[in-house]
Parts: sequence; structure tokens; C-alpha cells
Amino acid sequence: MEENKAEMNDLEKLRHSAAHVLAQAVKELFPDTKLGIGPVIEDGFFYDFGRKEPFTNEDLKKLEEKMKEISKQNLKIEKVELNEKEINALKKSEPFKKELLEDLSKKGIRPTFYKQGNFVDLCRGPHVNYTAKVKAFRLLKVSGAYWKGDQSKEQMQRIYGTCWPTKEELESYLKRLEEAEKRDHRRLGKELELFTFMEESPGAVFFLPKGAVVYNELLKFIREEYVKRDYEEVITPLLYDKSLWETSGHWEHYRNDMFTLKVDNRDFGIKPMNCPSHLLIYKLKLRSYKDLPWRVADFASLHRNEVKGALGGLTRTRKFSQDDAHIFVAEEQVQEEIGRCIDFVKHVYVEVFGFTFDTVLSTMPEKALGEPKLWENAEKALASALDKNKMKYTVAKGEGAFYGPKIDFKVKDAIGRTWQLATIQLDFNLPKRFEVTYEGKDGKKHTPVMIHRAIFGSLERFIGVMTEHFAGKFPLWLSPVQVRLLTVTDRAVKFAEEVQSQLKKANVRVELDSRLETIPKKVRDAQLDNIPLMVTIGDKEVDNKTLAVRTLDGKVKFGVKPNDFLSLITSNIKGRELEIKL
Amino acid sequence: MEENKAEMNDLEKLRHSAAHVLAQAVKELFPDTKLGIGPVIEDGFFYDFGRKEPFTNEDLKKLEEKMKEISKQNLKIEKVELNEKEINALKKSEPFKKELLEDLSKKGIRPTFYKQGNFVDLCRGPHVNYTAKVKAFRLLKVSGAYWKGDQSKEQMQRIYGTCWPTKEELESYLKRLEEAEKRDHRRLGKELELFTFMEESPGAVFFLPKGAVVYNELLKFIREEYVKRDYEEVITPLLYDKSLWETSGHWEHYRNDMFTLKVDNRDFGIKPMNCPSHLLIYKLKLRSYKDLPWRVADFASLHRNEVKGALGGLTRTRKFSQDDAHIFVAEEQVQEEIGRCIDFVKHVYVEVFGFTFDTVLSTMPEKALGEPKLWENAEKALASALDKNKMKYTVAKGEGAFYGPKIDFKVKDAIGRTWQLATIQLDFNLPKRFEVTYEGKDGKKHTPVMIHRAIFGSLERFIGVMTEHFAGKFPLWLSPVQVRLLTVTDRAVKFAEEVQSQLKKANVRVELDSRLETIPKKVRDAQLDNIPLMVTIGDKEVDNKTLAVRTLDGKVKFGVKPNDFLSLITSNIKGRELEIKL
Repeated sequence: MEENKAEMNDLEKLRHSAAHVLAQAVKELFPDTKLGIGPVIEDGFFYDFGRKEPFTNEDLKKLEEKMKEISKQNLKIEKVELNEKEINALKKSEPFKKELLEDLSKKGIRPTFYKQGNFVDLCRGPHVNYTAKVKAFRLLKVSGAYWKGDQSKEQMQRIYGTCWPTKEELESYLKRLEEAEKRDHRRLGKELELFTFMEESPGAVFFLPKGAVVYNELLKFIREEYVKRDYEEVITPLLYDKSLWETSGHWEHYRNDMFTLKVDNRDFGIKPMNCPSHLLIYKLKLRSYKDLPWRVADFASLHRNEVKGALGGLTRTRKFSQDDAHIFVAEEQVQEEIGRCIDFVKHVYVEVFGFTFDTVLSTMPEKALGEPKLWENAEKALASALDKNKMKYTVAKGEGAFYGPKIDFKVKDAIGRTWQLATIQLDFNLPKRFEVTYEGKDGKKHTPVMIHRAIFGSLERFIGVMTEHFAGKFPLWLSPVQVRLLTVTDRAVKFAEEVQSQLKKANVRVELDSRLETIPKKVRDAQLDNIPLMVTIGDKEVDNKTLAVRTLDGKVKFGVKPNDFLSLITSNIKGRELEIKL
Repeated sequence: MEENKAEMNDLEKLRHSAAHVLAQAVKELFPDTKLGIGPVIEDGFFYDFGRKEPFTNEDLKKLEEKMKEISKQNLKIEKVELNEKEINALKKSEPFKKELLEDLSKKGIRPTFYKQGNFVDLCRGPHVNYTAKVKAFRLLKVSGAYWKGDQSKEQMQRIYGTCWPTKEELESYLKRLEEAEKRDHRRLGKELELFTFMEESPGAVFFLPKGAVVYNELLKFIREEYVKRDYEEVITPLLYDKSLWETSGHWEHYRNDMFTLKVDNRDFGIKPMNCPSHLLIYKLKLRSYKDLPWRVADFASLHRNEVKGALGGLTRTRKFSQDDAHIFVAEEQVQEEIGRCIDFVKHVYVEVFGFTFDTVLSTMPEKALGEPKLWENAEKALASALDKNKMKYTVAKGEGAFYGPKIDFKVKDAIGRTWQLATIQLDFNLPKRFEVTYEGKDGKKHTPVMIHRAIFGSLERFIGVMTEHFAGKFPLWLSPVQVRLLTVTDRAVKFAEEVQSQLKKANVRVELDSRLETIPKKVRDAQLDNIPLMVTIGDKEVDNKTLAVRTLDGKVKFGVKPNDFLSLITSNIKGRELEIKL
């Protein structure tokens, strides 16, 4: 094992040892199998094995049993020295290890080995000291992989597993996993007809009508916040001449991640981010300190040439839009403006979406642009903006971008997973590269500080996270269909149509189910479609001109007047509430 | 003259003769100048002359005087035969005519000549019969051009002119021209900070914050109509694999107008239109006759590789969005659905924008796809939909697209210019190419008819037309800034801020002008910025908690209560009214 370069924490050590226990089990049950590598990953580990036939689910079961045996044997896991002869024997029997040993030797690195019982593996360590510690584990799945991730090299069989210090932690993780699979946005997206992907445009989302509603509601929400918070929106081109990317530095540092093409026989790039467009607009006129802060927002389509193999659902796409804004401030305005950004993040995540989050302040890295004094002031400003907003945060020392310090928000979803979504970054670099200035009170030219900030980040990714967070049961204001009217009898259809038309006029998204089906069947279908409000209309309702209202979580109220129902809905939607109170 | 291939109407003949009179004047005043060509264009004519130095404005004056003389001489304009010797003399003195004569000879076409006085020009004709008819004319401007439009060929001097049957028509045209120049959206766009263009992205608009407001308000309006009219919006990728463009036929017929690039080592194209995306989505599931009509809309950014020289303002751009929708219908639904489309066009243009328009029905061309019977039925359906909607229309026989008949709407703006904006087109082709079907009542597969329809067409172009139509004075609902509060004294600022905050909460776009300037100055500035509502707040208003309201067209009302003012505004905006009634 030679993959883990950074220091390992206890949990990682444990999982790393679990990978070795798995490898030992494989060698005992399938001795012809060759060993690849077995690194630690988030929530677990994998091990790649050289072998033609995939492992079956039954094989996994057997391997788990064997691992339990090895665990019970409580073998000592120890670092050992191998002599020339032993190394040559290993090279002979393990071709992949041979290659790794030769790689190390080329680099002049002395190999180290770990041993438990008769099993020896090339490995930098570290490990837990006894196999008995590897006791709460589970093998999860097998998938194909290539040696060293290179499609031209040998096909490997990769076994994924997870391992935890206690059975309880394992059980709770497996439950979370099961829950996550139920909520998988790729599955829900298809089932609920929210979005899909097609081979004709890899990595770019097709938002179907229902998904487009969610998308547009999010835009509408953010735009309303922009008006309240004095942001200005611009609409900008997508294709730009190379010269712009040279000024911004993208051509030098980011070109491989961009889609490029020839236009008028010149090199052009499709924009991967909005900052350069906004710097161009900033430069259109002379700006004074009185014009700052200037907050400019943009929902332009961005494109990044992500490796095709890395694409998966909405979390990584080649085309996406950000609720991305840039704020130009004078240095002395940084603290107050950061405070406003933090307030914005809190409002959206906590008040509107009911998420919680962790906050991380990342400070000056080793290679940094700008005077240390500028960094120091900026970091102080960020810290005191956080303090003033009574935000708990951790400091990630030296983890800021080269162009400035930043605050990241790691949002926790309903099943405890964290997502890096919102970010607030200071930038001392781009304003210099683009030579933007403002006239200060002193009549002199100054360089503004630029703040990059995104609340949702990629709208596509946010919709993915949110779909899983709500398990497809969006709050009323975001629901593609907000109300479904269910008629009990044919006689009810006319009244139902009147109600439908009244709701529609008020911009409520309403459907009418007048099929000749039973009410239990209609209710069940509406529940499967995650419709937040079901309204049953039978003879009684027609006679009394009332509605029987049922929420997705099972609350029911009879005899509701259409006007009261409309007020209930519109006030819930306007308030962007998470729950419906009947 | 050999450029005019189609038959000419009387006005075109007159303008064609005016070009000859100009050419004669140039030869008399500037005998070294060589003759190029002089075709008729919209509203006038031009003539290209081979000459190094540009004509000055003074030259134009002199030429106009000379043309008047020639007109007064009332020379007969007649078709003449030239003998070999005369032709050779002409070739010798006129190198461009020589080239044209050689071109004709290569094609085996016998040249014809027209003569007035001593002036002879190579020309297919026809002309008016006497120079006296060319009496109401004006030379408008000079610009550089290249011989045969080819940058590698000789530089020419192009003189533009206009000519009309009567002085009155000339005067009215010149007035319209002057008015159009005042309204030029490129100038207004810059002055009002609505939009701009930059060299970094030729042909792509930068909508500045104020322009983006207009853009987004238009989208919001159309989206509301979509909800009412049962359209579904989708959000689609921009980059597609060549295979899609092959299926649609774009790769064969439209490739040169597309921006193409390599993605994953395959050919991709940036989409120039939305239809193929919608066909892909149609195909995602089985559709039944019960699902039709299915109306799918999209505001995706479209890109077309327009020749750089042809780009100009918002009327022709490389990047644009359409309020573009596709409707899939069964053949027997065509008439009813076209009726709905016509209603939509009428609502938007007549009721909301106050435009008038001409309607043209274009029928089966010579080369047409699909059975004549299908065409006949479709044309009948279009015609009767027009009749049912009490629409006057003309028929352009044989001018339909190869894939189906269509209805075009030529919108007249405030100064009488017409713009081809809305369109409704039937398409028998793409549904076949993509093999889309629906299950009919008979349980069998049928091919739906596809309707392409756009109301605004390109949003960019529509904003250009609308900016000129309203001369930058947008109706309240579209105005980037709807209200400006003007304080008379410092004492008024606090109350003004309260009013501002109240309006802002109601999503009114409001600015506060609390500068230390006089009210006449503040009013004048607001008028220059085309702010539809100016609100003056002085001591009296502070004491009475009222407002003095003034519209851009000069109506004034004192003592308005803030709440009443808010109701006035919100109801005007909600109704998307063209006028403000105080």
C-alpha cells in the first residue's frame, strides 16, 4: 500500500487495515488473484484485484466470513523488512506489486511492508496493531476498474467496503446508506420526471417540465433577495476571445478545463465562470467610492470540460449555472460586506431551507498573492464579520486560495451528509489583472477588493442536494405540482374545474384527476407523485361548495372554503414555508 | 446595371433611375471616377464608385445640385444597342464594367445598355422613361465598400440615396429617418445603460443591469402566459454531439452557420435552435393522443455564426434566446391549435404592446416535403384558423418553408417601420426525421405534426425593436427604474426613505435622488433617464405625509397618499398597462 500520502487519523488507519484484511481473505479464498492497491476513501476503503471474472455477491459473502475469521484470529499487524530474496519472490507472484516496487525504486524511495499472519503487502502504513480491531465492517459492492485508472491497462475488480470502530456506528452508516439510496437524486429525478441526461450531451442536464419549475422557482427566490439586498443582475455572452482568458489567467491555468473553439479564425473559449465578464462590465465606466459596494449577479450558463468518467448526476456537470455574484468593495468595506454575505447565507440555508451548516475560515496559504498586511487585515475582517454574526467557525490555516482568504459553508442535509455549497471568497488578484480602479475620497485611483460569493453554488448541484434532502418531497413553493384535485364522482368535475381555474389564475400549479378511479387509488397516486396538497371533491363538497384537503404527511381538513384554501396556499408560498399548517 | 434580377415595381424603377442619374452626375463632376454597380435597396438605392478619396459632404451637395440639373433637362432614358467598338471603348474607360461584361459573356448572357443624354450604363433595366421623374431625392451618406463585397478586391466609395415619387413622400421619409435615428436602439442602449457590445465577444449582447431588468420582465410576462396557456418549460443543454445534428439535418444544411468544437474527440455543435432538444424530450416516453397537444417552451441561449460584418446592434446577434416553443399535435388538432397561437400573438402585440401588424400566410413551395393532400389540409386549417380569429391576411403563394406552410406577422412600430417578429410554422419533416409518434385512439402509431412558433422571436431583437418603438420610454412594468423620489430639502430625506422602503418591499424598482440639487434639475435628470414616475417630496409632503407625483409625459398630481400611490403602481404593473392614469 503506497497511495496514502497524507497522515492518517485513527478511522483511516482502521479502514486501511480493513483493506489489508480483505486482501488477505481474497488471497486465501482465491489464491490466483493478483493484488493491486487498496486505499482509504470517504466512509470506507476499496481494494483493486487483478482477476478476469468479477466477484459475485456470493463471493462477497464468503469474503466477509473469511474476514471475520481473520479478525477473530487477532493477528498482529506489523511493519516488516523484506530481504532481497523475499522481495523478488513477491515480485514474481504479484505483477502489480512488482510494477509499484519498480516505480518506487525509480523515485529512490525505499519500500516498506506490512504483515499479518502469512499475509504481506507492500504498504507505507500506518495500520491498527491487531486484526481484531477490524470487526465492524461490510463489503458493499464490486465494480470494474483499470490498473492505475488507465483504460489501456489491465482490467481490475474493485471491491468496496466500509469499516467502523463499533457495530453501532456500522449499523447507523448502513442505514444512512440505505436512506441515501432511496433518496438518490438520479433515481428520484427520473421517477418524478424532474430531470434526465442523454448521450447526445454528456454531463449536461435536461430539466424536464417539473424540474424546470423547481429551477425557475429557485431563480425567482434568489432574484427577489437580490432586489432586497441591492444586487444588480446582468446577462452576459458565453463565448469570449482568448485575449480575455489571457487577461484573467484562465488561458494559462485553466485552459484544459474549458471548451475551446475557433471563431473568425481566432481562439475562443466558452466561459467556465462569470468573473471576467463582470470585470469587463465594471470597466465600462469610471467608478467612484460612492458607487461601492457594487454587487453584480449573473445566471449565465457555464461550461467546464469535466472528464467524462467523473460525470454523475447533478453533483458534477459540464454545463451549470451559479447564483454567482461579484461584489466590488473598498478595502475598508470588506468587513461590513462580508457580514451582509453571511446574513444572506444564513437566511437562505437556515431560515428558508432549514439546513444546518459548519463554517470554515481559510487563511493565507504559503504561495499567496498580495501584501501580508492586506491578508492580515482581510482575515481579521472576515473573522470579525463571523463573530458579529455570532457564527461558530473553524480556521483552516493556510487553506485559502492563492488570491485571498475565504469562508466556506458545509451544509448538512437531512441524513447527516455534508455538502460544500455556499462560499465567500476575497480576491486581490483579478482586480489587478484587469486594472480596475475606483476614485477614492482623496481623488486618487484605488484598486477595489473583489468578493466572489455564491449561495446555492451550482444550481444544478443544489437541486441534486435538495432533492435528496427532501427525498423528492419539496416544500409547497418549490413543488412542481402544488395541488391535485381528486373528484369522487362525475358530478364533482364541474365544481373541481371551477376551483382549478380559480387556483390557476392565482398562479397555483394545480392538476385535476377526474379519472374513473377510486379515491384511495387517486390519493395513492398523488402520494407517489409527492403532491403536497390533495383536495377531494365529492357530492358533499359540491353541495356545500367546500373542499376536503389532505397534506402529503397525512393531515386532513374537511369543509374548507375555496377562498380560505387559496389564502392558505398563497400565504404559505409567499412565506416559502417548509411545512403546511391546515 | 445588372444586379436586379427580379421584376421591378414602379417605385423600384424610379430608384433605379435615380441611381443612374447619380452616376451621370458623378461622371460629370468627377470624370476620373470609375463606375461600379448601383442597385435598388429598401427605401432607396446606392451606387459604388471606384475612387480612392471618399466623397465629402460637400461633394454630396454638389452632386445633388447636378442631379437636379439632369432632372430638369428631362432626358429620355432609353435602352440602346452598343456596337463592338462602343463596347470596347466602354471596357477601356470603365474597368469594373469591363469585368461585369466579361462575367456576362462567360455566362452567355447578352449585355443590355441604358442611355440618358451622353451617359451610358451597362444595365438590365427597367427604368422610368424620363429623368424629370427623378425629382424627389436625397443623397444620404457615403461609406466604404469592396468591389463585389470581397475584402481582397478594390476599395469602392458607396453613395446611398433615397428617391420618392413626390416631394411630400420624400419629406415624410426623411422625417421618419430622423425619428429612427433619434430612436436608434444602439445609441439609446448606451445612453440609458441598457446593453452594450464588446470586442471580446462579437455579436453577443451584454445586458447591463437596466437592460437585464427589461429582459427578465419580458421572460416573466411570457412565463405567466405559458402557465395560463398550458405550455411547459424545459431547460436544455447547449452542446450536442454531431449525431443529433445529423438526425435533424443541420449538419448537412446548416453546419456553416453553427459554432462547432471537439468534445471527447468527437464533433459537437452549439445549438442554433431548440427543436432537436425538444424532439429528444418528446421521445423520452410513450405519448398517447390524450397527451396532445404537448406544448414545450425553452429560453436556451442559441448561437449562430453570423458573418462578423453583418452584425449590428440587437437586430442580428450571434447569441440570442427565443421565446420559442414547439407544439406537437395530431393532424386533426392543427386548426384549433393554430387558433390558440394566433390568439397568443394578438394578445401580446395588440393588447399588451399596442402594436399593429400585417399577417401573411405562406403556402406550399415547389420543392416541398410531404403529401400534397397533407399540405392542402394544413393550408386550409391555417386559413380557417385565421378566418375564425377575424384576421385579415395576404397569401404568399409558394413561399412556405419546404417542411410546411406558415403564418408570419409583420409588426408595425410607432414610426411605421415593419418587423418580421412572430411566426407560426407547421413542420411535417422533423417528426419524421426523429421518428416520433403517438398512439392514436385506434391503438396505432401516428406521426404528430410539429408547430414551431415564436411570439417575440429573438428576445434580443424584440428588445431592440421595442426600445425604438417606445423611444426608450418603456411602459411602467418594463421600466428598469419605475419611480424616482426627489427630495426638496434635507428634511424630506427621512420620509423619502420610508416611502422608498415601502415601495421596495412591494417589489417596485425605486431610486432616491437626495442630492443637493434644485427640483427642476432633478426632474430634468429623471426625464433624461426616462423614469416614468417622479415623486417630489418637500416640507408640505413631509408634514401631510403625501406625495407630489409627476409622470414622464407631464401629468402632475399633488397630495397623493403613499398607499394610494402604491396601489396605483401595482395595479398598473400587474395590468401591464401602456399609460399611467393619475
